[in-house]
Amino acid sequence: MGLKIVVIGGGSSYTPELMNGFIRRSEELLIDEIWLVDIPEGKEHLSVIRDLSRRMWEAAGLRTKIYTTLDRKEALPDADFVITQFRVGRLYARIKDERIPLLHGMLGQETNGAGGIFKALRTIPVISEIIRDMERLCPDAWLMNFTNPSGMVTEAVIEKMGWKKCMGLCNVPTIAMMKEPALLGKKEGELTYRFGGLNHFHWHRVWDKQGREVTDKILEFINDKDGGTPVNIYQQPMDMELLRSMHMIPCGYHRYYFSAEEMLEHSLQDFKLHATRAEQVLETEESLFELYRNPSLHTMPPELNKRGGAYYSDTACECISAIHNDKGSIMVVNTENKGAVNCLPEDCCAEVSCVISAKGASPVAYGEMPEAVRGLLQMMKAMEQCTIQAALTGDYGSLLQAFALNPLIPDGAEARRVLDELLVAHEKYLPQFAEITAKRKKEGVFCEDSVVQNLVRAGH
Amino acid sequence: MGLKIVVIGGGSSYTPELMNGFIRRSEELLIDEIWLVDIPEGKEHLSVIRDLSRRMWEAAGLRTKIYTTLDRKEALPDADFVITQFRVGRLYARIKDERIPLLHGMLGQETNGAGGIFKALRTIPVISEIIRDMERLCPDAWLMNFTNPSGMVTEAVIEKMGWKKCMGLCNVPTIAMMKEPALLGKKEGELTYRFGGLNHFHWHRVWDKQGREVTDKILEFINDKDGGTPVNIYQQPMDMELLRSMHMIPCGYHRYYFSAEEMLEHSLQDFKLHATRAEQVLETEESLFELYRNPSLHTMPPELNKRGGAYYSDTACECISAIHNDKGSIMVVNTENKGAVNCLPEDCCAEVSCVISAKGASPVAYGEMPEAVRGLLQMMKAMEQCTIQAALTGDYGSLLQAFALNPLIPDGAEARRVLDELLVAHEKYLPQFAEITAKRKKEGVFCEDSVVQNLVRAGH
Amino acid sequence: MGLKIVVIGGGSSYTPELMNGFIRRSEELLIDEIWLVDIPEGKEHLSVIRDLSRRMWEAAGLRTKIYTTLDRKEALPDADFVITQFRVGRLYARIKDERIPLLHGMLGQETNGAGGIFKALRTIPVISEIIRDMERLCPDAWLMNFTNPSGMVTEAVIEKMGWKKCMGLCNVPTIAMMKEPALLGKKEGELTYRFGGLNHFHWHRVWDKQGREVTDKILEFINDKDGGTPVNIYQQPMDMELLRSMHMIPCGYHRYYFSAEEMLEHSLQDFKLHATRAEQVLETEESLFELYRNPSLHTMPPELNKRGGAYYSDTACECISAIHNDKGSIMVVNTENKGAVNCLPEDCCAEVSCVISAKGASPVAYGEMPEAVRGLLQMMKAMEQCTIQAALTGDYGSLLQAFALNPLIPDGAEARRVLDELLVAHEKYLPQFAEITAKRKKEGVFCEDSVVQNLVRAGH
Amino acid sequence: MGLKIVVIGGGSSYTPELMNGFIRRSEELLIDEIWLVDIPEGKEHLSVIRDLSRRMWEAAGLRTKIYTTLDRKEALPDADFVITQFRVGRLYARIKDERIPLLHGMLGQETNGAGGIFKALRTIPVISEIIRDMERLCPDAWLMNFTNPSGMVTEAVIEKMGWKKCMGLCNVPTIAMMKEPALLGKKEGELTYRFGGLNHFHWHRVWDKQGREVTDKILEFINDKDGGTPVNIYQQPMDMELLRSMHMIPCGYHRYYFSAEEMLEHSLQDFKLHATRAEQVLETEESLFELYRNPSLHTMPPELNKRGGAYYSDTACECISAIHNDKGSIMVVNTENKGAVNCLPEDCCAEVSCVISAKGASPVAYGEMPEAVRGLLQMMKAMEQCTIQAALTGDYGSLLQAFALNPLIPDGAEARRVLDELLVAHEKYLPQFAEITAKRKKEGVFCEDSVVQNLVRAGH
Repeated sequence: MGLKIVVIGGGSSYTPELMNGFIRRSEELLIDEIWLVDIPEGKEHLSVIRDLSRRMWEAAGLRTKIYTTLDRKEALPDADFVITQFRVGRLYARIKDERIPLLHGMLGQETNGAGGIFKALRTIPVISEIIRDMERLCPDAWLMNFTNPSGMVTEAVIEKMGWKKCMGLCNVPTIAMMKEPALLGKKEGELTYRFGGLNHFHWHRVWDKQGREVTDKILEFINDKDGGTPVNIYQQPMDMELLRSMHMIPCGYHRYYFSAEEMLEHSLQDFKLHATRAEQVLETEESLFELYRNPSLHTMPPELNKRGGAYYSDTACECISAIHNDKGSIMVVNTENKGAVNCLPEDCCAEVSCVISAKGASPVAYGEMPEAVRGLLQMMKAMEQCTIQAALTGDYGSLLQAFALNPLIPDGAEARRVLDELLVAHEKYLPQFAEITAKRKKEGVFCEDSVVQNLVRAGH
Repeated sequence: MGLKIVVIGGGSSYTPELMNGFIRRSEELLIDEIWLVDIPEGKEHLSVIRDLSRRMWEAAGLRTKIYTTLDRKEALPDADFVITQFRVGRLYARIKDERIPLLHGMLGQETNGAGGIFKALRTIPVISEIIRDMERLCPDAWLMNFTNPSGMVTEAVIEKMGWKKCMGLCNVPTIAMMKEPALLGKKEGELTYRFGGLNHFHWHRVWDKQGREVTDKILEFINDKDGGTPVNIYQQPMDMELLRSMHMIPCGYHRYYFSAEEMLEHSLQDFKLHATRAEQVLETEESLFELYRNPSLHTMPPELNKRGGAYYSDTACECISAIHNDKGSIMVVNTENKGAVNCLPEDCCAEVSCVISAKGASPVAYGEMPEAVRGLLQMMKAMEQCTIQAALTGDYGSLLQAFALNPLIPDGAEARRVLDELLVAHEKYLPQFAEITAKRKKEGVFCEDSVVQNLVRAGH
Repeated sequence: MGLKIVVIGGGSSYTPELMNGFIRRSEELLIDEIWLVDIPEGKEHLSVIRDLSRRMWEAAGLRTKIYTTLDRKEALPDADFVITQFRVGRLYARIKDERIPLLHGMLGQETNGAGGIFKALRTIPVISEIIRDMERLCPDAWLMNFTNPSGMVTEAVIEKMGWKKCMGLCNVPTIAMMKEPALLGKKEGELTYRFGGLNHFHWHRVWDKQGREVTDKILEFINDKDGGTPVNIYQQPMDMELLRSMHMIPCGYHRYYFSAEEMLEHSLQDFKLHATRAEQVLETEESLFELYRNPSLHTMPPELNKRGGAYYSDTACECISAIHNDKGSIMVVNTENKGAVNCLPEDCCAEVSCVISAKGASPVAYGEMPEAVRGLLQMMKAMEQCTIQAALTGDYGSLLQAFALNPLIPDGAEARRVLDELLVAHEKYLPQFAEITAKRKKEGVFCEDSVVQNLVRAGH
Repeated sequence: MGLKIVVIGGGSSYTPELMNGFIRRSEELLIDEIWLVDIPEGKEHLSVIRDLSRRMWEAAGLRTKIYTTLDRKEALPDADFVITQFRVGRLYARIKDERIPLLHGMLGQETNGAGGIFKALRTIPVISEIIRDMERLCPDAWLMNFTNPSGMVTEAVIEKMGWKKCMGLCNVPTIAMMKEPALLGKKEGELTYRFGGLNHFHWHRVWDKQGREVTDKILEFINDKDGGTPVNIYQQPMDMELLRSMHMIPCGYHRYYFSAEEMLEHSLQDFKLHATRAEQVLETEESLFELYRNPSLHTMPPELNKRGGAYYSDTACECISAIHNDKGSIMVVNTENKGAVNCLPEDCCAEVSCVISAKGASPVAYGEMPEAVRGLLQMMKAMEQCTIQAALTGDYGSLLQAFALNPLIPDGAEARRVLDELLVAHEKYLPQFAEITAKRKKEGVFCEDSVVQNLVRAGH
């Protein structure tokens, strides 16, 4: 008997990637049913995706059935894998995450910055409800989380909600492992990788088949076009002298920390041009759906790769296969740290190279972090934990702490205003902060950006 | 037989405070000789201080002898206590530490900011030479370090140079313990204090004589004029909602972190008015020495208290007495952590409440730090350790790392320029960086600030 | 207004020591009422103690009132300090603790050996009920625990029952600090002590008033009659070459570990002579009570000192005074470790030098333990934690684990028999193990020692 | 070009196993030369092994060349892998390791007991000389250590001698992974294993291909004949109730700890019958060499499997192949812990499941150890570290500490006598203890066992 897979946020433009990944693995991964779940606002998109998906499976000559529903309770019973890739408040919320901080001259950064903090605040309560449903309806299922900030969401699921069968996925390490070998004239799979750190804040080291470390060699390509940085990050050159001193390869998102000023400047330009990442994506999405609606399309269109989620299916589908087929593959996921990154708490989540088998993810000990990396990691983890605390309790103090710790947010009264404006703008999706938000509104807090105002007015 | 005390940097305007403290403790602390050591450039100041000191001891009817020398090897033999309060490059160097970053729109902050990093780079090599002399000339002496950044200097002495009989002192905790009881209508000594953290980056909790914690009560006064913040820090009000969420009292220097933007704005105004803290102090110093030269002055003039070193002698002399008289007093010093602040490495230095007795400082376990505090502390300690590494080795990469970690320094190319300009401006005092500095000069790096240029031209 | 003190196990022969200690401190410790609580079986002893106590206070010209009750709920309301010094199953239980293992050729050792494990199993459930009463009746009271095994009981109270206002006391460190100075020709108080470890399993280091470590000097006297070992421990000479290699002074109980075979041999002789420690004490007790009954006695009789509890009152009364008067004294107590002994968990209890003030016990960081000591301490702590787990849950597996870890208990089938015989013999006091004990009885487990059989038959 | 492999202790009766393993892997592991190194006393055995090995390779139709030498410097140049399987003092020393403690009624146990301690004392200095030669002659070679106590030797090599390219091997985990699947009706490789602990003192957990933990199921077979315990350990049944409470599978050697008394009793019988393990092996060895000398033998004789080293080649050859071919296999080796077993120091060696690739062994984080296991592991590690310290420095105090910590050695004067007799009996192989041994001899220390006396007299 084949698997039952449920995709929450199934109406996403990424879903065809996922279908593609499953179809390519159809020999090792027999799937009976895929359930696509979405919210009423996403109904039309969901049906577009359903139709395309069905055309894709049919073209592949396979019998996997595609179902859709607006009620996840209908989809979850006896699921084997639940994939979460939803976005609370959709891209409209991300626009606010990015534009509100930028209006005040700060980076929003939708994963670990102010935007990421608010994305966590919106997402964690919803994930919590999903877990409650899963406890009843599919207590043996694996939760494969793709929803950003993937590290914080996964830590909340594993450590706070106690659902141990969860992995947090991200395509950034996958992209590095796919792209980097070519830099040294090698093929994919010919290098050995060790990743350690946090989601969108990890480092890695690399060895060749003779056991020689080639980290420093690959590092030299980091500012190249094909250096392994995801295309959705502005390719601001990084300071090579700083990186060389660390002897580890940072992820593309480290640009936001090590070149904060330049990344901010670039984002401010985008802000003025109404071309923040979220606004761009909103547009791309529309054109993608236009393509998807074409009834003669029955494969994943190449345009999707530009969206930023390249190798998304390689991460998700391969990981599901490694679990289902007890493969013992080494992959990079967010999982309970257990001392693998030894400067972080044992019982937090880290993004680290793991052996993935039927029993789950077993993290490989990363070894000593140099001081410079240790300090940053520890602070980011504390920031994540304050955010998770705030998301679960609605405690305003914890939220202030997360802002105070976050290195992308300058400290002072202006940051406080950004925080309050974000609370007010996202009011609809932050019931846990209802009281303080009401107070702030009464005090007259609101965001002056017309884009944000229009979104709020439109009910987003 | 009485004690022999050596003061390195004896020509400092602070020395009369120290004399005052010793004189007030003459019954418990019998001192035979005090040796004031300074460098040739400080010769005139040194003689002013010597004369005033002699007048002070004479007026007190005591026989302690005051000697001066420009060669510390003459002073050190058989010393019991060596007090270090020197400033490599004198106030002129501090002016550069503050003005160069401010020229580029960044805080210099002479203790933990960019200025503090460079002060450590200049000081640690000199301390290393002093230790080498002490090993031969007074191997049983205690080193009482007051030179800032006191935490980093002390860690370098204890952990890197292996001189365990060293304490790093600071008057900031003393000021808090002197001023705060009055806020609750109590007298000095009626409250129990526990400090934990790093120099100029510590927190504390307080209990009354009934064992009830009064931390939160005192916290409410933190923005008051007499709230316990040193007068030399601009009294920018702190965010009470943030602080209340932590249930610990931060030190005055936390303003630089929690209100970075406002503190920067204020410093930029000072910069424009040629009134940075160093420039102000240079002026105060001159007027103090004017007073000191008055042959009829034979007590410490009250003007000294405005200089920012209030209770300096209470810290230094009391600590010396606690060691010499095996008092077992509880005082706050920088010492080897040994797990007292359990989120920091065992073998680093922390600033923590200690039992001070003849055997040295025994730190009192501080207990769990909340997440928000933990993350900041860990990052600041990593920053300190990169700085110490850079100071000892001249490694440019470690210096870049310290800058990347420091939360008062925005990340990006501009910070790199500040770093290089500081290297060039301090060239004379940073022999360990000679090679890279020469390279930077060849590349045309120099600071455009006319004050800095004039100082360099004048040989500072 | 004066204090209200409740003594649970008030009918103990030790109580006159306690009265003596309070009377000697009457100037600093104003006590209104002392309530002596005991169980019905101890009623006669309780009245003897009450009468003697009243005579003692009266002779001292003080008005403190002595009350007795067999119901602790009558005594507890609004107590300031509750002292626990009871013995579940009285000395009869201790006789079983010692004789049953010895019958099988093993040490019973009533604190950390097999006897200590069973004493913990009997005591912890009763302490748990006392805490429940205190939560309602005197929620602000301090619990000063003297009931052995003091370390395990205190850890159960603080870490498992969540009653933070608890200290575990022991006179062993006090005896060392009282006796050792004389070995070096010093007076009490002239040496500085640092203790670290576990109850009856601690080490200490010592410094003189010049800050020189004198640990090794004192160590040389450890096998002397007045070397600081409690008189109730057989003075088997310890291996000086082993101890010298550790540069720390062990406690008297380390004889049981480092000279296990000789201590066993000595105990086996006592066993044959019906002179195990418990049997001896039972006799001493009787003669003590004979003395106490003398209506003309109104001071503590010197014979009590031979009982093994010397300086008991110095520990208890001084500690109460340090709390009540916010003295900041340095004393050795069992309290939450918080990293003070850094090879043990943060959240366990350790016996360590602490600053004792109104806020409670603040442990002083002990610093690095040598490997040999670290290994033993870690194993003993694990043994304690398995025992506490067994005591609280009645889990037989945890009890087997405690036995397997305990170095005084040889591993194998014989130990299992000892364990089962102890369970059966103590059936009355171990309701949490009722099921397994019934099973064992059905299997025919019983102890063949006639002393034990007689005790059981007599209802003990 | 093929590999060059050097086997130190090449004259061992195990070597045919090794040859067999290499021959079976000849397709993946091209070997040009195998050098067998031994000492002059082993010359005859060495030539027997050489001849048999040559016949084996020839019979397999392969061209690998076998060389022998009595001077390792001749063999080491440019070696790729150096395998150490030597035994300082040969089996004669092991006879002393076992008989001397047994004469005094204690277990010798040649790996972690008193025998193991002395084996480490003899071996570590020799390994240190080998490393010095390797530094010059084959600085890129891997050291695959099989010499027991494998954990201590490997820790000395990696942590004290700084040779990071070293793995300590042992066939005990391999045997478990080979035998256990059949207990559940599975085939080899169908279960997922995680090992954690120390050499001959490890635990493991097991999962099936559906990710369900089957540890408890396998545990039930532990006392069965085919339960996975090495045949060279006396099959004393273990206490199932104790083991069930731990939910982890111990290794066969845990019998020595958990059933110490029964194992001792059994060993004492062997002692009386002159059939200690070493004496048995000496006999087996002779009959093995008799077989090996048969010129028509050109395969490994099945009798070798009874020797106790079953699956030896599967461990060694597979591990070499995993490194050479960058396989990423999961195997159990002794390597630097790096937090994988989080109750042990980061920088010690642990025996743990690792990913083995060209870069070496990457340990997989084992996760939390239950308290009972934690305490034992921590004490055994401390015991190992005292032993390593003693072996490297000849410090008698460290050796006393190792004895005091070792749970297989009863504490007291008798153990001290055993220690001294072992020192004297092994005098020839313990130059680092020359001074204390001379002193002990002068004091008249010698072993009364006639077997030991004869060995010493015969120059062993």
